[in-house]
Amino acid sequence: MTKVSGERIVKKKLAISIGDLNGIGLQIALEAHEKIKKYCSPVYCINKDLLKDGAKLLNLEIPKDFELEKVKGKFVIKPGTVAKDSGSYSFDSFTTAIKLASKKKVEAIVTLPINKESWNRAKIHYKGHTEVLRDYFGKDAIMMLGCSKMFVALYTEHIALRKVAKKIEEEKITKFLLDFYNNVKQDNIAVLGLNPHASDNGVLGDEEVEIIKAIKKANKEIGKSIFKGPLVPDTAFSPMNRKQYQYYVCMYHDQGLIPLKSLYFEQSINVSLNIPIIRTSVDHGTAFDIAYKNSKVSLKSYINAVKEAINLSK
Amino acid sequence: MTKVSGERIVKKKLAISIGDLNGIGLQIALEAHEKIKKYCSPVYCINKDLLKDGAKLLNLEIPKDFELEKVKGKFVIKPGTVAKDSGSYSFDSFTTAIKLASKKKVEAIVTLPINKESWNRAKIHYKGHTEVLRDYFGKDAIMMLGCSKMFVALYTEHIALRKVAKKIEEEKITKFLLDFYNNVKQDNIAVLGLNPHASDNGVLGDEEVEIIKAIKKANKEIGKSIFKGPLVPDTAFSPMNRKQYQYYVCMYHDQGLIPLKSLYFEQSINVSLNIPIIRTSVDHGTAFDIAYKNSKVSLKSYINAVKEAINLSK
Repeated sequence: MTKVSGERIVKKKLAISIGDLNGIGLQIALEAHEKIKKYCSPVYCINKDLLKDGAKLLNLEIPKDFELEKVKGKFVIKPGTVAKDSGSYSFDSFTTAIKLASKKKVEAIVTLPINKESWNRAKIHYKGHTEVLRDYFGKDAIMMLGCSKMFVALYTEHIALRKVAKKIEEEKITKFLLDFYNNVKQDNIAVLGLNPHASDNGVLGDEEVEIIKAIKKANKEIGKSIFKGPLVPDTAFSPMNRKQYQYYVCMYHDQGLIPLKSLYFEQSINVSLNIPIIRTSVDHGTAFDIAYKNSKVSLKSYINAVKEAINLSK
Repeated sequence: MTKVSGERIVKKKLAISIGDLNGIGLQIALEAHEKIKKYCSPVYCINKDLLKDGAKLLNLEIPKDFELEKVKGKFVIKPGTVAKDSGSYSFDSFTTAIKLASKKKVEAIVTLPINKESWNRAKIHYKGHTEVLRDYFGKDAIMMLGCSKMFVALYTEHIALRKVAKKIEEEKITKFLLDFYNNVKQDNIAVLGLNPHASDNGVLGDEEVEIIKAIKKANKEIGKSIFKGPLVPDTAFSPMNRKQYQYYVCMYHDQGLIPLKSLYFEQSINVSLNIPIIRTSVDHGTAFDIAYKNSKVSLKSYINAVKEAINLSK
């Protein structure tokens, strides 16, 4: 987490993209500052005027050591509202953070939630942060979610369920497994089957054949039996299996996110792997329903995202 | 659970189909007898000779009040082995139990686990108990699994994942919802979407349109807003939602069974609804690896299955 240079402890510098200012992101950033500055030196991607406006609406003090990276823009914050200007600003805050990381001015970035509809209004046609990163770096970013107890990497993400089976191809899975291994460097990773009972030897679908081949190829290439499986999906996350595995490769969105959110709701974070920078994120949305209402907002996912960003940048 | 007739308390009579005798079923039946007889009068579908052989192998006493319904058959029990004769016998034990219930000689049946491969060897080509019941009664049996904290009913069951989306049809879902309601008579039932984020308004698939129509039709037919949804699958089982819902309709096998087995492993049972008899079952298999080895075997799922059978026969 920290380097000792002479007598001085140098904390990792992180860029925080501020998210949609009509949502709960700014409240989280302000309220969590005292806590996270113990672990890192955060740089918030927002300009002074908007910060002041937001803090005033929230009735919160701006901490004296709240370091900013200016992001141009001026608009009226409208709590809990889908809006073009807040959408556009959240995108600019994010790209500012990406650039800081690309130029090695920070060691990682942590993103607060954006609103997809507001991005749409601002004619930003990405489905989310991960897609932007994929496009920006021209790399197959891997989306991994979880907390220290359990991480799930998604082989397919935001696609219709009916399209998932067609994506199960040996070659692409092998590449995914190798990319994933190169990023997390774990010795024991579970890979799930696609079908109920992992197909019961071909009785319920046959895509497991491709998955088995991919596991074998990836393990051969690495020279160790890193990947285990394909696991029967419904028992993959039983208490016994969770003792054995911390990292899971899931074939589709809900195969990984249903168990994660059933077991570890609010604690989880989102990590983008296989890109040239380190990026973590909270695992929740803008929560427009409670924004700027003096509501108690959970800081757990954000603080975990900060900790994991520091951890990954070691 | 019990009826008072004069001074005497009459316990519900349950038929227990003994499952695959090469597996852990008999051990469970013998060890749980003292407990379950407090709630019911069990009748075990097995003959005296095989019971004696099994009890001897297990080094367990046969309780004096262990009432039998004779099922013909003679073979050597081979612990932990796939075999034609034990497959065939487990099927006969099951059909004996079905007949007892059909003739109203018992009020419900509880099934111990069978082995599918052993059924195959015996040329019994059903995928499991539920399929037998569907065929026997010519009715659309509904498979529901769970425990008192959470029940999931499966709209599709043992089919390949790639085939699920095509099954999402308004009319069939409406029928399923109405059948389900008529069996469980609950006022608040969650229905899940099929796609990630329940399709995000059609961005990730469109099958939710059919589900929405089915929910509306079923609620209209019942005259009350029983069914809620479609819920976003990945947050459907969050702690907050689990406070709100006890019954869930899931579109496919793992959508329901992944969260159930992640959260409530070993406690769950299997219930067949929408058939003329009541049938519950343990939620685990024959566990050949620990059969007849003096292993400690969990009785939880079996005892819960017995309790739920009594509950449903009220």
